[in-house]
Amino acid sequence: MSESIGVSLIGCGVVGTEVVRALVEDAARLEARSGRRIALRHIVVGNVDKDRDPVVDRALLTADIDAALADPDVQLVVELVGGVDDAFAWLKRAIEAGKHVVTANKALIAERGPELLALAEARGVDVHFEAAVAGAIPILRVLRESFAAERVESLLGIVNGTSNYILSRMSEGGVEFADALREAQEKGYAEADPTLDVGGGDAAHKLAILAAIAFSVDVPDEAVLTEGIDTVGAADIALAKGFGYAIKPLAVARREGECLDLRVHPALVPESYTLAKINGATNAVCVRGALGGDALLSGPGAGGAPTALSVLGDIIDVTRNVACAGQRRNAARGVPVSAAKPAQVKPTEERRSRFYLRLDVQDQAGALSEITSRLAERDVSISEVHQGGHADAEAATVALLTHDAGEAALRDALSSLQGSGALAADPVVLRVLA
Amino acid sequence: MSESIGVSLIGCGVVGTEVVRALVEDAARLEARSGRRIALRHIVVGNVDKDRDPVVDRALLTADIDAALADPDVQLVVELVGGVDDAFAWLKRAIEAGKHVVTANKALIAERGPELLALAEARGVDVHFEAAVAGAIPILRVLRESFAAERVESLLGIVNGTSNYILSRMSEGGVEFADALREAQEKGYAEADPTLDVGGGDAAHKLAILAAIAFSVDVPDEAVLTEGIDTVGAADIALAKGFGYAIKPLAVARREGECLDLRVHPALVPESYTLAKINGATNAVCVRGALGGDALLSGPGAGGAPTALSVLGDIIDVTRNVACAGQRRNAARGVPVSAAKPAQVKPTEERRSRFYLRLDVQDQAGALSEITSRLAERDVSISEVHQGGHADAEAATVALLTHDAGEAALRDALSSLQGSGALAADPVVLRVLA
Repeated sequence: MSESIGVSLIGCGVVGTEVVRALVEDAARLEARSGRRIALRHIVVGNVDKDRDPVVDRALLTADIDAALADPDVQLVVELVGGVDDAFAWLKRAIEAGKHVVTANKALIAERGPELLALAEARGVDVHFEAAVAGAIPILRVLRESFAAERVESLLGIVNGTSNYILSRMSEGGVEFADALREAQEKGYAEADPTLDVGGGDAAHKLAILAAIAFSVDVPDEAVLTEGIDTVGAADIALAKGFGYAIKPLAVARREGECLDLRVHPALVPESYTLAKINGATNAVCVRGALGGDALLSGPGAGGAPTALSVLGDIIDVTRNVACAGQRRNAARGVPVSAAKPAQVKPTEERRSRFYLRLDVQDQAGALSEITSRLAERDVSISEVHQGGHADAEAATVALLTHDAGEAALRDALSSLQGSGALAADPVVLRVLA
Repeated sequence: MSESIGVSLIGCGVVGTEVVRALVEDAARLEARSGRRIALRHIVVGNVDKDRDPVVDRALLTADIDAALADPDVQLVVELVGGVDDAFAWLKRAIEAGKHVVTANKALIAERGPELLALAEARGVDVHFEAAVAGAIPILRVLRESFAAERVESLLGIVNGTSNYILSRMSEGGVEFADALREAQEKGYAEADPTLDVGGGDAAHKLAILAAIAFSVDVPDEAVLTEGIDTVGAADIALAKGFGYAIKPLAVARREGECLDLRVHPALVPESYTLAKINGATNAVCVRGALGGDALLSGPGAGGAPTALSVLGDIIDVTRNVACAGQRRNAARGVPVSAAKPAQVKPTEERRSRFYLRLDVQDQAGALSEITSRLAERDVSISEVHQGGHADAEAATVALLTHDAGEAALRDALSSLQGSGALAADPVVLRVLA
């Protein structure tokens, strides 16, 4: 029998239990694939006495994180707790003790990844975090290994399953945001506090991690323009459909010269695009590169077993390195930390896009000409218009798509329209994927 | 500067030229990602004097394969010529000389892969062949690394771009097979002799390679049931559409108990499936697994730069191993050759499927009842029927979908119908993806 690699698992919730299950029930096959037996030595949990799936060996359960991190028979620490500061402290100690690290913690990697990776590089150990982005979709390893030679031009992702579920339900069922959110919460897709999901913060973390690998940069949190899906109404989804688009929660990273344009927001996606057909809690990432053209990866973005699949892939990667005695084979982001430059982010006022506008106007007759002239004055030209009168009165809804336009110019035109009293309500502004 | 890894490239056609371009124009970035400079030392070609892209350094061109294989400063041999016997002989010599090997040669790997991998394993060198299957789609590395812990239940692939282009054109343009094929040849998608593409042989090679990695088995060539797309008529595409299906050139590998069902054939795919929307020369592979559920990877299946991307990913993989001094890190199929069992293949007579039948009948009145009774006698039950009369006469076309049925029973029923004189022409039989 081959030697074993000792593992401490921190956290044993839904994902952790599935990791344990595979390590126990599939031990022989995973050993054949890794070159070593993967031996769980400690499972660190908050409550040792809680009822758990019988596959979890109670003898391994402990609340003693110090013992789990100090054990000389442990070569790999797997963190599945979440949160930033405690997790950072644990993994820092693990790395300083010469142990490899696997985590599914997107907030940790987005906020303190560069620090953690620099520590690991100095100590010569591996850090992997495939499960931090897009669940079972193997996008990080594909960017780092398979596409290592790619010159990535853009990444387009649907990386928040909750938001995608909500917009899909609004589209299929014609329901409003609040109802779709409640449904998502009932089904367990959305947290009790859904802010991080529907506000875009979760997707922004994931985009920062993706962009760091794809473009060999450090991405500070504030570099990602982040807008939530809560501005999208059922009316917008119907109007977008009329124009031939689906509204999707997108994460976008695009190289523009020396700059990166990094954005998370709902966007109109042409119905003919595969991304427009990624529905429900499914995630997808489209990589556009100079060599490979467009490649798309899709799959379950969350859930115990799918996330465990990615964690296990990382565990096997580390185990193969240990088994072949390779020293520090994997730069976690494809290049050493020292080779990553800070991201040069496109200033907001320079961002350009096509836009969708929904404007409720007071006076149907004069409104369209006022709208078009205010936009035209600022070089925002219109490609398509839909005007629907309200049954009751003079008021009307004007929906329109612009050609490519400067974001600053558009905002300025809208302020001017609001100032003139032409609008009956705040305008809805969404971006259109060209 | 880091040490370099010396490379001999055998073959410098469309793909080889793109590999050279990246190694030359992107040298610094690839070095940062690999840990070593990747130094081309020999480019072996048949005609040294031919005009070539200026990126190819003529000083490296040689017709002397012996020198390229024997050079002690070469650690990696990249084969991009194709063909089985010569390529095998070259790579065998390279391996025996202790050199790592990368190839894009699907016929070689499908037919003599196990032999080559066993040699490499004994000698402790890497063999990679990502570009042999599905061009830029990183499916082999994903199966071997990211999904190393997956229990794969099935693979569904569109892995022959020529066939997919032809069926897509027949579907969009309503053109017949022969016209779509001619168009594909004019656009350079199809070879002058298209047999290997439209007959399914090319896809069968790729399926054998995929199944070997996904299921840790050796797959003999004859294990794959192989049917071409040349039986599909424009009429079938229209009838399938009426039933809610697109006809796609599928490669299917499915675990059924201890057996594998391995098949390449055109199939009716429900229009709601993402696979039904993969059109033109694009390839896609859907992996269904016990942990990750359904994951889909799609992208360009051929072409110089996309194929080069996969070759370069393999070159960087080898280079990282050399740079970290890892000994034999990668079992090319995820497990050592000794751990792969011969594939247990489902006997044809035990294969089951839903079927689509198109039957031209002589006598409209009696035909349907005769068809249904002959099928019913053999436990083949019908789920949907479409009967269209011909303008001129009593003759009619009956199209139908069966429920899940045994292949042997279905063939038997059709023989019996043909014997009875009920059919005016040979029946068209296609499988339906359930």
